[in-house]
Amino acid sequence: MEKRELLYEGKGKRLYKTDDEQVLLSQFKDDLTAFNAEKRGNEAGKGALNCKISTQLFHLLEQRGIKTHLIKTIDETTQLVKKVAIIPIEVVVRNIATGSLTKRLGIKDGTVLPFSIVEFYYKDDALGDPLINDEHCLILNLVKSESDLEELKRLGREINTIMKKFFLDRNLKLVDFKVEFGVDTEGNILLADEISPDSCRFWDATTNEKLDKDRFRQGLGDVKVAYEEILRRILESEK
Amino acid sequence: MEKRELLYEGKGKRLYKTDDEQVLLSQFKDDLTAFNAEKRGNEAGKGALNCKISTQLFHLLEQRGIKTHLIKTIDETTQLVKKVAIIPIEVVVRNIATGSLTKRLGIKDGTVLPFSIVEFYYKDDALGDPLINDEHCLILNLVKSESDLEELKRLGREINTIMKKFFLDRNLKLVDFKVEFGVDTEGNILLADEISPDSCRFWDATTNEKLDKDRFRQGLGDVKVAYEEILRRILESEK
Repeated sequence: MEKRELLYEGKGKRLYKTDDEQVLLSQFKDDLTAFNAEKRGNEAGKGALNCKISTQLFHLLEQRGIKTHLIKTIDETTQLVKKVAIIPIEVVVRNIATGSLTKRLGIKDGTVLPFSIVEFYYKDDALGDPLINDEHCLILNLVKSESDLEELKRLGREINTIMKKFFLDRNLKLVDFKVEFGVDTEGNILLADEISPDSCRFWDATTNEKLDKDRFRQGLGDVKVAYEEILRRILESEK
Repeated sequence: MEKRELLYEGKGKRLYKTDDEQVLLSQFKDDLTAFNAEKRGNEAGKGALNCKISTQLFHLLEQRGIKTHLIKTIDETTQLVKKVAIIPIEVVVRNIATGSLTKRLGIKDGTVLPFSIVEFYYKDDALGDPLINDEHCLILNLVKSESDLEELKRLGREINTIMKKFFLDRNLKLVDFKVEFGVDTEGNILLADEISPDSCRFWDATTNEKLDKDRFRQGLGDVKVAYEEILRRILESEK
């Protein structure tokens, strides 16, 4: 597979065309951004860690029946992925209240929610990725139909169920996470983008130590150490 | 009915107890607030206008099968209303994009939406009345069940259908509006609060002239003239 021109550069990855029109090359970057890119940083080796972590999690989800864009991981920081039209909705699933939810709703940080909730955010940097409801998704034509929205919620909840157990078996609380989906040429909705400590919050189940991008957001240090710890626990056998 | 102690003072009204435990007295104020009360004003006679307008609209809606808290309007600024537990959700229905929707979603001001949308805002001044989705309503226990949320949406849409036609017959576009609901002692969901140019946006259907609280929000002047015009059109026969 030959790498061709840069198609898109996001905050965490670069997407390149290849000699196969249906295949893209996704390269994980070491850049870190937070608060809609108002805070920026760089952590050597972070891209490789996220590439490894995301690969493992996409394999796990594929095994459990979730279709993903991942074809193959070809080196430390590079994945071959199916070309999809990204649905411009960030699907956020929350198990424990923290971050923007506590500020928005006045819920105490760390509160275990009575049930896991799904939120939609409009993926638009200029607007600051605002929270939106189902009807906003429809009037903005972000999806074709209401049933697509139901499918995004179903997939978000299913991914949460699988990952929550997987991480709890490794003594980690899956606090919340963000996923993105794309539509392939046959109209299938595939999990796309990545799942990593950049897009999830993980707390050690014993100490509640934060092992995710909040270390960067909040200037807690040891960002790479935390990401390495997540990879280590993913690779270890279940306790 | 004897007026007793002040129960609650809101931005636009004061609620008093009466000698009947199930009945409150609602007094419309001349105060105007906008942008979560950051902008404040006062317009002599505004309370009386809103009381008259809201009385007319609640009668219209009652005639069309919408249950409301209104018992009787007893003077220029005062209504007797059934005591209800207010559901702390502002139900907003929009036909045309303007105000916060255009800023949030980047939709051009004045765009006629492909269909009327319903939004929920958490009625909490300290939090700035944030937009919320259905699951937020449930985790915050703002309603008892998902079916209550569906009922709020159904009522919002029904009120919109009735009022949109009523105002268009009077050469006014109903751009958007906010309504609040309460639960009575028998568990019925009743339309509460008020419907007035404080809580609706009205544009003249010919000139698009704003005839609502946006005149105050945007410092356009002639606030009272606009409210009087709305009352005049409500009271005139259909064109």
